[in-house]
Order: sequence, then structure tokens, then C-alpha cells
Amino acid sequence: MPKDFIVDLVEGVQKKKSHVCVGLDPDFERIPGHIKEMAINEYGPNRRAIGEAFLNFNREIIEAVKDSVAAVKLQIAFFEEYGHWGLKALEETISFAHHKKLLTILDIKRGDIGSTAAAYSRGYLGGVNFWYGVKKKVFNADAVTLNPYLGKDSVEPFLREMEENKKGAFVLVKTSNPGSKDIQDLRLESGELLYEKVAMMVNNWGEYLVSEKVPYSQLGAVTGATFSGAAEKLRDLMPKSYLLVPGYGAQGAGPEDVIPFFNEDGLGALINASRSIIFAYEKDSYPDQHQWAARQAVEKMRTDINSALKKAGRLAWD
Amino acid sequence: MPKDFIVDLVEGVQKKKSHVCVGLDPDFERIPGHIKEMAINEYGPNRRAIGEAFLNFNREIIEAVKDSVAAVKLQIAFFEEYGHWGLKALEETISFAHHKKLLTILDIKRGDIGSTAAAYSRGYLGGVNFWYGVKKKVFNADAVTLNPYLGKDSVEPFLREMEENKKGAFVLVKTSNPGSKDIQDLRLESGELLYEKVAMMVNNWGEYLVSEKVPYSQLGAVTGATFSGAAEKLRDLMPKSYLLVPGYGAQGAGPEDVIPFFNEDGLGALINASRSIIFAYEKDSYPDQHQWAARQAVEKMRTDINSALKKAGRLAWD
Repeated sequence: MPKDFIVDLVEGVQKKKSHVCVGLDPDFERIPGHIKEMAINEYGPNRRAIGEAFLNFNREIIEAVKDSVAAVKLQIAFFEEYGHWGLKALEETISFAHHKKLLTILDIKRGDIGSTAAAYSRGYLGGVNFWYGVKKKVFNADAVTLNPYLGKDSVEPFLREMEENKKGAFVLVKTSNPGSKDIQDLRLESGELLYEKVAMMVNNWGEYLVSEKVPYSQLGAVTGATFSGAAEKLRDLMPKSYLLVPGYGAQGAGPEDVIPFFNEDGLGALINASRSIIFAYEKDSYPDQHQWAARQAVEKMRTDINSALKKAGRLAWD
Repeated sequence: MPKDFIVDLVEGVQKKKSHVCVGLDPDFERIPGHIKEMAINEYGPNRRAIGEAFLNFNREIIEAVKDSVAAVKLQIAFFEEYGHWGLKALEETISFAHHKKLLTILDIKRGDIGSTAAAYSRGYLGGVNFWYGVKKKVFNADAVTLNPYLGKDSVEPFLREMEENKKGAFVLVKTSNPGSKDIQDLRLESGELLYEKVAMMVNNWGEYLVSEKVPYSQLGAVTGATFSGAAEKLRDLMPKSYLLVPGYGAQGAGPEDVIPFFNEDGLGALINASRSIIFAYEKDSYPDQHQWAARQAVEKMRTDINSALKKAGRLAWD
């Protein structure tokens, strides 16, 4: 079967009974010392060693959480800040996740004019131009996040690659940070808040990409768990959009906060936590127990969300 | 003298009598054949060869235009799509531009929550964390472009790096693409268009970064030349912001369109053209004359804009 992001996501969620997505946001200062030392011993104190430490750390986290999640999210900024050595580690992390049969959501939040958006969509979702018409995959992520500020023609090149390659994307609607109020919460003359208007656009843009196998579109939305009060309205405005919900854990949201982001079918929301899972070892275990600590943390999050869903009468299985 | 982006920009514009910025947007299909062949002969048909061809092409364009412009703009998407090999070429292009005493504006259009924005700002403008508190510069661009959709706390980490390292940034206000109307032109309850409201925010955010040496802030804005009708209002709302004005040339705007983006002092707008300069050779000269063609095209653009400014009584020199 060829990969089909939204179908594979729904199937993976149901098979693993998990709405959790783990964010791989490596932070050099917080990676266990022995992983860093190994890399420095091999390559010296340079960016190559940092990339190597990121890759090894990610591999170990992936091994620890792979049975508890359908997808991992990679925040590209934490790789990108180390330049080409960081990006090399990112490319290899995505390959490794695929090898472990995990879907990869690449958190790029890109948004640019058409010709530039086409370059991003070729690189992240499709294939880039080589010579004599040959195309090659570079990052080959299964889905990306997108910023809507530049409008529909900045999203269209991604929609085309998504259609051709059965990939996914999540457009930023209401983000999890406090400052999201500055622009996203502005009241429009037509009565809605800006983010509500963007939600309507996302719903329209993604309508033709609703799967025939599951009741969801390849085009989803990012809606912060930290604004639980907006969830019901957003859910109504985008019934066919899978919601990528960041802000659980380190940013403060808990299991009850994420329930209203789910549809009645008990699906439709993928809840992301990053630092609270991957650096769980910092809390009460030893650095060499980082895998065990991450697995405990992700399993707790998985069961906490499922319990809250059950209480709300929206558990998709059992 | 330590580098100071906004001061160096104004001085460079005046010294070179040029408001032009050349966009280095490499496109593998359009790079002269002999440059590609050399790279493939050396490395084989792979991404490393593409990165090498990008770097060599950029070097030659930089040599051709360096006396006619104060700054070059690098659209990161065209490097990024080729993954870590593309980013390596980008890092080396920035170094080469600095060696030729050109300012570099890295067109990244990033916007993310605080902790992630901090990673981007360390990587692109400041220094990244190594070990034992050591920081190292990675991209070391002189300025970047930013997307405002996530609000002030997504811009603040950049403002801090800008203050500390005397760097610059340009926030997207009204972009040059047709789809910019979808969201940026929405009318707010308070009466303004969304992009006008964003312009006011940019003016406020950048107020404390107005230079003591020139009447401009380190925080500028991106305003598309293709929406010349909005220029006067935008200029009024952001009197101290340097405007980065894309859309000249391939996107359709000409010298008269960009005049209203300038202040009365004949400064305040940096006009960018990318494809119409770097691929000028495609029009009527041979592939091995790409440097000559680029130089002709940038000189024509420089004098066309200066003539239009003179006619409007806003030429900053002689």
C-alpha cells in the first residue's frame, strides 16, 4: 500500500490507541551527557558532533516511544540553528522514524509567495529538480505545518504536492503562545475573530482533499491546547480537519483541556508534547534512564487523555 | 567599527548611490550550463554538486553586482529544498558576500512561539549554544525577514539578538503576491485593514531600536512593490522603518511604483529584484555572459530608480 498520510494517521491512532504525538525538539544543553560526550569524542567540539548527538538522542527517543504514538513532530528550528549539520541530523532522523514505521510531521511553519512556496513544498513533501527532468526526494516528511499570513496562493503549491504524494499539512489557525492574541484574536468587521476566519479558509482550502477512506482532509490545522475555550468553535468551523494540538505539558495544558478539540467520533485531534516527554528524565531519574523516563511520560499522557475521553463519552475504541 | 546593520545599510546606499538589493534565488534549471557541468564533473550527479553549483553561481553574481548594491537578499527556500547540501552553500554564500563587504538579508519569513523563535534567532542572527557556555555564530546574517502571525512574543527573541548584535529584521506587512489580499487585506472592526494594524505594531515594536546615527530603526518591514497604492499609508504608519520592497522586475513592478515607498529624505526603501537580475542572461545574451548581463540589469535598475526619484524630487544625493 502506498503511504497515505491522513489514512495512515487515523489507522495508527486506532491501532496504538493513542492520540499522542511526541515532539522531537533537541536541545544540546538538555541532552544526556553521555550522548554528547560520545559525539564529541568521535568528532571533536564542533557542529558535526552536535548533529550526531541530536541524531543519536532522537533515535533513542523514537525507540522508547514508537509503540505509544502514531507520529512524531520535528521542530525544524532546533536543527536549523546549527546550520547544515543540524539539517543533516534532521534528514537522518526522518529516515529513522520511517524505518520504525512512524509518521513524521515536520514543524516548519513556512509561508511564502507562490514560486518560493513551491520550492519549500518540493523539498519537504515532494521531490526536487535534478537534471533532465529527474526528481529526487530530500526530506520526504509525511506532513508539514504552514503559516497562512500570505494567503491561499502561498498554500496552493503544498496542496498540489499533497494531492500528488498523499501527504498532509496543518495550517496555523490559533497558536499556543500567549502572543497569539496580538494578531490572531483581532476582531474583523464581519464579526469573526481573525483566527475564526482563517479556520473557515482552511476548511474550504482542504475540502477537495477529504479522504475517501476516513472522514478527514489531508489539510488540517494547528490549534493550541492552551486555548481550550476556542476549541468547540474551531471544531465546528473545521469538521473535516485533523487538528494538531500543541501546548500540552511544558506549555501548561492538561488532559481536560484537549477534549473539546476531538470530534464526536473520538478522533480528529493529535495532541503534541515535546519537552515534557523527551526530557522527562530531568525530573526524577538518571540521565542514562532517559528512554525509560520518556516511555513512562508518553504512556502516562496516552492513558490520561484516553481516560478523559472515556469520561466525556468520546473514546474511539474499546 | 563594529558592524551595525541599519547604519551600514544607509551608508552603503549613499556611497553606492543605489537603492537596489539583488535577490540570490538560485534555480538549478536556470543556472548556466557550464557551471552545472563543472560541479557534476567534480562530484557526480548528486546534491553536493547542486550545492557547489549554487555557491559558484552566487559568487559570480556577487562579483558582478557588488559595486551596484549595498545588500543582497538570500531566499533560503531555494537552498533549503536541497537539504543540508543546500544550506551549506547558503552558509558559504553569506561568508563570501561578507568578504565582498555586502550586507546580507536572509529571507527566512520565520515566525514561531518564543522558545522556538529563540532558536531561529540564535542560528540566524546571534550565536548558538555549544558547551560550557560557549556560543558560536552559524549563519551570521545581517538581517532576516519575519512573519508576524504569531504575535509580539514570536518577534521578541529576534529583537533581543538584534539589540545585542546590531542586526536587523523586516517584518512581513503587505506581501507582493496576489494572495496577500486573502488575510492581510481583511478589514478590522476598528476600521483599519489587517496589514495597516500590523504596520502600527511593527512601528511600536521597533521604536526602541531606532539608531542614534541614522533616522531609522533596526526593525523594518516588507511591503510589496506590486501594491504601490498602499505605499503612502504604510510610509506614514512606519516613518522610522526601512522598507524592504520586493516585486520589482519578474513580479511586474517598475520604477514609478516604488517611489511612494521612500521617505522625503530619499531613503527608507530597499528595492529587491531577484530573477530579473540573476537570470538576465536568458533574455538576450549567452550563458557565459551571465555576469555581464546581471551587471547591465542591475545598473539599469539602479539608474531607473534614481531617475524616477530625481523626477519626484526625492533623490538623496547630489
